[in-house]
Amino acid sequence: MKNIKLTIEFDGTDYSGWMKQGGCSECSVPTVQECIEKAVYKLTGMHSDVIGCSRTDAGVHALNYTANFKTESGIPPERFYKALNPLLPGDVKAKSSCEVPANFHSAFSACSKTYRYFFYYNEVELPHLKNKAWRAAPLVRADSSEILCAANEACVYFKGEHDFTSFKASGGLAKTTRRTIFSADVTKYGDFVYCFEICGNGFLYNMVRIMAGTLSSVIEGRIKPSDISEIIASKNRKRAGMTAPPHGLYLYKTEYSL
Amino acid sequence: MKNIKLTIEFDGTDYSGWMKQGGCSECSVPTVQECIEKAVYKLTGMHSDVIGCSRTDAGVHALNYTANFKTESGIPPERFYKALNPLLPGDVKAKSSCEVPANFHSAFSACSKTYRYFFYYNEVELPHLKNKAWRAAPLVRADSSEILCAANEACVYFKGEHDFTSFKASGGLAKTTRRTIFSADVTKYGDFVYCFEICGNGFLYNMVRIMAGTLSSVIEGRIKPSDISEIIASKNRKRAGMTAPPHGLYLYKTEYSL
Repeated sequence: MKNIKLTIEFDGTDYSGWMKQGGCSECSVPTVQECIEKAVYKLTGMHSDVIGCSRTDAGVHALNYTANFKTESGIPPERFYKALNPLLPGDVKAKSSCEVPANFHSAFSACSKTYRYFFYYNEVELPHLKNKAWRAAPLVRADSSEILCAANEACVYFKGEHDFTSFKASGGLAKTTRRTIFSADVTKYGDFVYCFEICGNGFLYNMVRIMAGTLSSVIEGRIKPSDISEIIASKNRKRAGMTAPPHGLYLYKTEYSL
Repeated sequence: MKNIKLTIEFDGTDYSGWMKQGGCSECSVPTVQECIEKAVYKLTGMHSDVIGCSRTDAGVHALNYTANFKTESGIPPERFYKALNPLLPGDVKAKSSCEVPANFHSAFSACSKTYRYFFYYNEVELPHLKNKAWRAAPLVRADSSEILCAANEACVYFKGEHDFTSFKASGGLAKTTRRTIFSADVTKYGDFVYCFEICGNGFLYNMVRIMAGTLSSVIEGRIKPSDISEIIASKNRKRAGMTAPPHGLYLYKTEYSL
């Protein structure tokens, strides 16, 4: 029995997230997990539970999502992704595969996760960014260097180990609300899109989306960068900004010590 | 009667191009022109012919497409685009509008057009670039600086006034096959996408797509950059490369002397 690790890119627009839902498969919206499990079944003739590195909300994307599954198939591990791709839809593709130790688990073995959140400011919702980046507001007074300056000043306060209760939606399953953020910054991506990239040892439910919403409040001048420190200390979700929509969020990568 | 100029961004994936087709509207695939004409009709209560700066093939996109139409509507010209947007689908949006002289014609008044063609090399078709950029080949031997070097060397031969018969698909309506190219180059766009940008006084049918296909042959080493000169001189379509697919092509902008 081999344990195969897959790296997957997906456009989450037409999926109700990663995680398989309960209920009959006829009436539920497809999930990325089901989509991979079906492809593995078609390829190997055997059902394998495909374990993902993270739940993702409906509409959230991934650039290098890690998943693993056990199989007795004789297909060489490093060729699995190529064999799976013709069985996957165009919005979900495997980019690489390899064999990993039997105890490797995409979620539990992770030592860090990196997310990217893309947003822009424009009077009009741009067709080419539809479902791909959040139009945070029609217009902001600040110019691009002021936006980067304010957003990066705010990001400094996210770094380190904190109780992130203020940045957690209700409904998560986490045992503790403490997380360590290794890095967080905002950069320009192309002509006018901004990219908030954050890496940490784990994230609470909706944490990155609430951080992105809070950064938008900082950029629009409704929250000062230095307020982030008090918002964290308050452990009060109401003090932070809005939950930014799912379509700007991309799971960028997950790293492992195994 | 005012002549209103619109600047439009559209994702051409679900359209059979700009140009209204003959035949009944029930059975034909929608075109961008029809989509704008319907919105203008809903807004003003009167039909206006909407003139576009260029025909585009099915699947081709536009970032700043110019169109104009005449109307007796009392809506202030610079506000027209805002009033139209709620009546347009998410993949077609107007970005600005203004009044132009009565003799302004989006196609005939144009003095230059700029196109961008996006392409990349990867073993796997990337979900996030689906319908947005051409995967020119699974892999190339050249690294990124070699790709840019070869492609830009080839681009030099496109510049100036030439008979571009070798870069024209059959079926166009042009009276002459001579065109002047003002600029042409290939740059990196983000991490691994390449952008071929070309500006000229006009383009023959499929000319940019054949040029992009020819650049891909140069990058893959099947055509030498200096061969472009002979390919142009031969006036033989068979000497140039393939016609690159429509989904990598974006009409970037059109400029006017009026």
